[in-house]
Amino acid sequence: MPKRTTTLPLTLAPRPAGTGATRWLYDALRTEILEGRIRTGVRLPATRDLAAQYGLSRGTVVSAFDRLRAEGYVVQRTGSGTRVNTVLPQDLLRTPRTPARPAAERPPARHLTGFVSRVALFRGYEPRSIHAFRDNQPALDLFPITVWARVAARRLRRVGPALLVGTEPLGYPPLQQAVADYLRTSRGVRCEPGQVAIVSGVQEALDLVARLVLDPGDRVCLEEPGYIGAARVFEAVGATIVPVPVDAEGITLGARPWRGARLAYVTPAHQFPLGLEMSLPRRLALLERARTAGTLIFEDDYDAEYRYAGRPVPALQGLDHHGVVLFSGTFSKVLFPSLRLGYLVVPPDLVDRVTAAKSVVSRHASLLDQAVLCDFIADGHFGRHLRRMREIYAERLGVLLREGRAQLEGLVEISDIEAGLQAVGWLANGMTGVAAQRAAAGRGVEVTPISRYARAPLAREGLHLGFAAVDANEIRRGVRELSVALS
Amino acid sequence: MPKRTTTLPLTLAPRPAGTGATRWLYDALRTEILEGRIRTGVRLPATRDLAAQYGLSRGTVVSAFDRLRAEGYVVQRTGSGTRVNTVLPQDLLRTPRTPARPAAERPPARHLTGFVSRVALFRGYEPRSIHAFRDNQPALDLFPITVWARVAARRLRRVGPALLVGTEPLGYPPLQQAVADYLRTSRGVRCEPGQVAIVSGVQEALDLVARLVLDPGDRVCLEEPGYIGAARVFEAVGATIVPVPVDAEGITLGARPWRGARLAYVTPAHQFPLGLEMSLPRRLALLERARTAGTLIFEDDYDAEYRYAGRPVPALQGLDHHGVVLFSGTFSKVLFPSLRLGYLVVPPDLVDRVTAAKSVVSRHASLLDQAVLCDFIADGHFGRHLRRMREIYAERLGVLLREGRAQLEGLVEISDIEAGLQAVGWLANGMTGVAAQRAAAGRGVEVTPISRYARAPLAREGLHLGFAAVDANEIRRGVRELSVALS
Repeated sequence: MPKRTTTLPLTLAPRPAGTGATRWLYDALRTEILEGRIRTGVRLPATRDLAAQYGLSRGTVVSAFDRLRAEGYVVQRTGSGTRVNTVLPQDLLRTPRTPARPAAERPPARHLTGFVSRVALFRGYEPRSIHAFRDNQPALDLFPITVWARVAARRLRRVGPALLVGTEPLGYPPLQQAVADYLRTSRGVRCEPGQVAIVSGVQEALDLVARLVLDPGDRVCLEEPGYIGAARVFEAVGATIVPVPVDAEGITLGARPWRGARLAYVTPAHQFPLGLEMSLPRRLALLERARTAGTLIFEDDYDAEYRYAGRPVPALQGLDHHGVVLFSGTFSKVLFPSLRLGYLVVPPDLVDRVTAAKSVVSRHASLLDQAVLCDFIADGHFGRHLRRMREIYAERLGVLLREGRAQLEGLVEISDIEAGLQAVGWLANGMTGVAAQRAAAGRGVEVTPISRYARAPLAREGLHLGFAAVDANEIRRGVRELSVALS
Repeated sequence: MPKRTTTLPLTLAPRPAGTGATRWLYDALRTEILEGRIRTGVRLPATRDLAAQYGLSRGTVVSAFDRLRAEGYVVQRTGSGTRVNTVLPQDLLRTPRTPARPAAERPPARHLTGFVSRVALFRGYEPRSIHAFRDNQPALDLFPITVWARVAARRLRRVGPALLVGTEPLGYPPLQQAVADYLRTSRGVRCEPGQVAIVSGVQEALDLVARLVLDPGDRVCLEEPGYIGAARVFEAVGATIVPVPVDAEGITLGARPWRGARLAYVTPAHQFPLGLEMSLPRRLALLERARTAGTLIFEDDYDAEYRYAGRPVPALQGLDHHGVVLFSGTFSKVLFPSLRLGYLVVPPDLVDRVTAAKSVVSRHASLLDQAVLCDFIADGHFGRHLRRMREIYAERLGVLLREGRAQLEGLVEISDIEAGLQAVGWLANGMTGVAAQRAAAGRGVEVTPISRYARAPLAREGLHLGFAAVDANEIRRGVRELSVALS
């Protein structure tokens, strides 16, 4: 055993406010030992010296040493004082370590799964400042957060232990009921409340469904161009993505891509990213194909809430007589994205399976959030907010169409749209979407190329022009600047 | 085309308050058509008759018919009136359907994955009334919900659009920081805030880790007896569960079960269900085994917060120099279970993988909940609540030990415990745990047999005796009744 003794003064980290002296000394010495600054076998300072150095009572130091001894960090022998234990494996203890990043410098070789090697970061909403024409983004500055806060405060004041305990995996029953009612009346969905799973959003719904029906190698039909978030989930579980072209009526039904497809992901209310609504005949034909081929349909009710002209065709789910449609939507666009609440409506025979899966992988969504949302709907705030935003967005869309068509002629043709938070501007000046995006960014305008959502080259290049998140003046500025950028 | 006309009066569902007349009529007729009560080819009543029958203007009826026509439900021909379209596929539309459970009677044959066939419902907290000796349950009636409500109200009043947008997949950075600080000072965990993933609880953490490292057939070591929720996750992903006996120092390290183990799940702070703390030598030996064998360790910091005697041995994670430990815990027991917030601390080289996985499968946990929790911690309420509950639980444990040891002699031997929300009572009267549970239930006492958490028969049968969720009087009643029940 080496005869070294730690040199006084031992430099220990200062004692944080509120930490007892014994606890602090114990922690500090343990840290020194574990980080190799006090080596194994080394003798610690005498208790009286340590007490004097740090202005502690000797009893405090003795207690800390006792604790270290009880836990095997040090040994005490009469005459030889207190030494750091050599019983602790040397290779674990003598490596100096920085508290900052203990294992960063030499991560071990890892066996990781196919899932984790396939899964790719999916960028979320970004809180950077918003300019025309950010797509996929509601006007969060107009969300009535004070109303939400009032509803939440009232609910929290009345909360009893029952709401603190937990709820069913699928969700808080009154919210399941409220969502079922809303979907029945507004979206033509047919369901009992018990079929409604409250999820954290469409991504969780996609992941649940993927785990329900997709084995690695299974084929999944996706709209082309289409929603990247869905592709990310299906890729992660190892499915084979089959891009299926979209025409003016919706996803096309040519036999080849559909052969053996286990699942199809569609956005019938408002195709992402092209903004078209799936026609009724196409809906019926799609259901028929799904039924005969044993394909399950994931209906993402994307942007269905905001419709500015005509009435929506009812959800595919409401036309489905054979339990082939899983219907999903989110409150991210209607309320706010950081809430993380949405829904997945499942056929009755799959309710137990989804319940079991949710009970194991996430238990249930935040119950107080669910209860507050439920009150927000029941008190009429939800409907009121939706109607108000529909009017505001319709005005903003009007500005974009008027100004855009007047000033962007020959540069961008803005398509007619009836719903959603963005229009499509087809590039008429020979630029690629990416080039147009770059040019626009140079003038403080955000546009997203449609090609971002496509796997194959597009027949025609275009841009997403979001009109919901910014006001009329910013839309006007955006149009002017875009006109300069693309000229 | 059949010559039938729908009989008047058509019985339509009454108009809900707040629904426009045209919308209502359109919906009601569409429902009748879709549910087969008005068959395809059938002629609808004349607009003037329908207007008269329901007290509507004729223009309203015409508008509803126009909408039905535009969507392909009906056709209009001069002289032949308005008929339900036969272009709609007969097989989809003529099947009568109940709105209640559209597909319940004949669910289609489904191809489901191994995951969903293996996943089994994992029961959560139950909001039924609580008696002695419910285990695994904190005293939710003592949670300072009014303080939480005040903190939440203040945060919501100040919330800006940035908090409505969203946050990083791993979590709200100030909460990551607060959790990292807490774990460093209280649990001996070594981490940077960026290594802390905010999850909905230990179940989500387990699921993320399972998807990170477990392929079907991979071997996972679990403590025996042990936590069912972990087994459920690993079974669902198709792993092979290897039960590893626990002794007084913790999980045992005999070579055989550990051979080729990809992952081990352990509860070192307070073994579930036996309540023992893993010794320091065992911790070091476990880390060494994990390092040499390439086994990853999932450290569930189960019930570490409530410790009534001595000081806790620091977390395994804090002793780990080789990035083999993933550390997880939950706020369910310290705050309340329905909150759904917990944490997973990952080695630095896995941060990007976990971020990607979370971004795709759930985006991030509810941001307002995260922000409120962050304030609750920063304002000192968290620490205060923890200290207060630690005192209360220590008193309750004292009552259980005093009364139980006095009155249950020869029936139940209550073991010493230093931490957690329940003690173990070893059955000394020859009864099985299940028989004791039944007898106790007959006298209004809840006990959980340890055998519930075991895969193999136990050498000794025992009961979980929860002491945290009920007050001293109820504990006294429980002891008296249990004494009668087991005699």
